[in-house]
Amino acid sequence: MTIIVDAMGGDNAPDEIVLGAINAAERQNINVTLVGIEDDIRKAMERTGIRKLPENLTIVNASEVIDVKDDPSTAIRTKKDSSLTVGFKLLRDGHGDGLVSAGSTGAILAGATLIVKRIRKVRRAALAPVIPSTTGRFILIDCGANAECTPEYLVQFAYMGAFYARDMLKINSPRIGLLNNGAESTKGTPLQLETYDLLKKTELNFIGNIEAKDAMKGGCDVLVCDGFSGNVMLKSIEGAASLVVSELKTMFFSGVSSKIAALLLKKKMLGLKQKLNPDSTGGTALLGISKPVIKAHGSSNAAAISSAIAQAVREAESDVASKLTDNFNKMPPV
Amino acid sequence: MTIIVDAMGGDNAPDEIVLGAINAAERQNINVTLVGIEDDIRKAMERTGIRKLPENLTIVNASEVIDVKDDPSTAIRTKKDSSLTVGFKLLRDGHGDGLVSAGSTGAILAGATLIVKRIRKVRRAALAPVIPSTTGRFILIDCGANAECTPEYLVQFAYMGAFYARDMLKINSPRIGLLNNGAESTKGTPLQLETYDLLKKTELNFIGNIEAKDAMKGGCDVLVCDGFSGNVMLKSIEGAASLVVSELKTMFFSGVSSKIAALLLKKKMLGLKQKLNPDSTGGTALLGISKPVIKAHGSSNAAAISSAIAQAVREAESDVASKLTDNFNKMPPV
Repeated sequence: MTIIVDAMGGDNAPDEIVLGAINAAERQNINVTLVGIEDDIRKAMERTGIRKLPENLTIVNASEVIDVKDDPSTAIRTKKDSSLTVGFKLLRDGHGDGLVSAGSTGAILAGATLIVKRIRKVRRAALAPVIPSTTGRFILIDCGANAECTPEYLVQFAYMGAFYARDMLKINSPRIGLLNNGAESTKGTPLQLETYDLLKKTELNFIGNIEAKDAMKGGCDVLVCDGFSGNVMLKSIEGAASLVVSELKTMFFSGVSSKIAALLLKKKMLGLKQKLNPDSTGGTALLGISKPVIKAHGSSNAAAISSAIAQAVREAESDVASKLTDNFNKMPPV
Repeated sequence: MTIIVDAMGGDNAPDEIVLGAINAAERQNINVTLVGIEDDIRKAMERTGIRKLPENLTIVNASEVIDVKDDPSTAIRTKKDSSLTVGFKLLRDGHGDGLVSAGSTGAILAGATLIVKRIRKVRRAALAPVIPSTTGRFILIDCGANAECTPEYLVQFAYMGAFYARDMLKINSPRIGLLNNGAESTKGTPLQLETYDLLKKTELNFIGNIEAKDAMKGGCDVLVCDGFSGNVMLKSIEGAASLVVSELKTMFFSGVSSKIAALLLKKKMLGLKQKLNPDSTGGTALLGISKPVIKAHGSSNAAAISSAIAQAVREAESDVASKLTDNFNKMPPV
């Protein structure tokens, strides 16, 4: 099992990516291929105090870097020696079982689609993060790969999400909800209204429209939406969680009794922070691509990269992409 | 100053609404007109232990109730003796300076638009809640009155939001952000792309695209969006906040040291809960209507109703609706 890691993508690249990849190589029973500017990777090792590479980690040099400002499709096509382009070609050609990048979502999507290719019949790949809820967790699909969607895309997202929930979260008959601004079947824009009718006709366990707050109370296992709304939901949760954490910090550092309480709670607060932190659950699966591709959070640190690598391993081991391919071959046309 | 209160709308009607209205009449220097089924209102008073109505509170009987399941526009037109229809007619005819309802958003919007009417030139009324951020607060407009929007509506929301921020939040040159799935000007669907270009041309202090998490960090004073995305954002914040509160409760009740910590923090936790609770900041203004209309949260209790009434008073006192009318008369066509 080999996981390809883009050393140059993300706010903390290359240092944290290199460190995370090395940690994963040392602790997980896998090979890691680190793709990027070799000189920068070596310097990152020096800065983080690592003298020797683990034997199961290989560096593949790639002289270019795709910047967040670059147009994704153009960059993937023209920067032929970028870490992402080289990494995706390695994945396509069978030199790896999965790829992890904390780079720009657009570039990862473009690279995965143009080089590794979508599963046959899949119209659009979708980002599917696992979100914590009061009673467990659920899959949000799509959370930003496709700002504009058709009802057909959304039905395909529902199929992919359902499959992923069954295979990776071990939920037998996942409850599929459609993100909407109310539970009534008349709610939403034409996109939601048409998708509702189409989902009703599938054999999926479609439970109807769900509001964001009800999904977070455990109202469904897969929450289907267009990438724009999904992104708004994901970023709002992130924003609300940091607001609460910042308020808690202010609270804990005002007055003696609060400081004592903070000490008593220290360990548990860390646990809570971890549960609310999207990085600790690994990265986000890009579903619909013929091989496992994981988008790590842009602000990933070494621990987040390690956990995204672990997620790529789980996806590769359970062979989600091949099973999805079979699934789509059998899927009735929308 | 008289505030009209719909006694029959909301999950906790009529008891909590009646109690909230009575509290407001007793503590705020205003008159309150409570509209609804008089018999039900009297019974609610009995149940909540109130024997005598304050002198500054009047009951206006209305024999019908608009249900959440009713089609909003049809219900406003056909249920001529519903609490909302009667209440809005009182407001239109000058028998009150503002109206508060915890009823269905659709019915409030339909009633306000059909009976009280929009301000001239305003294409759509919009819901504009005040949301807490790490550094203060911001206005989210629209959060659910209009699932489908045009760029022109969004530009008008920006004007209304800016005006409200100046007049009610006392922010001199409010920073207007456009809710988007990234900060770059190329992000979003055609709606965001076109709105971006239009907002650039206005004299508003438009600072560009803003992601939900950055708005929650205090990145702007007015966050403009279509009602569908705004609703997703609002409900996601609500969901995330209740997830955190539920996790904190679990944490506080596991183990002796945590229980001690919980006791030490009790008062401050209540303060935090209140800051995160949308009800404590009052209701949500429906902007663009020719008189003040406040939508209280569907799950409002008596305290939430009182604070929504206080907000209606503030809006009526500062004469926001008339000022908005002047503003729109001077506004260049979009």
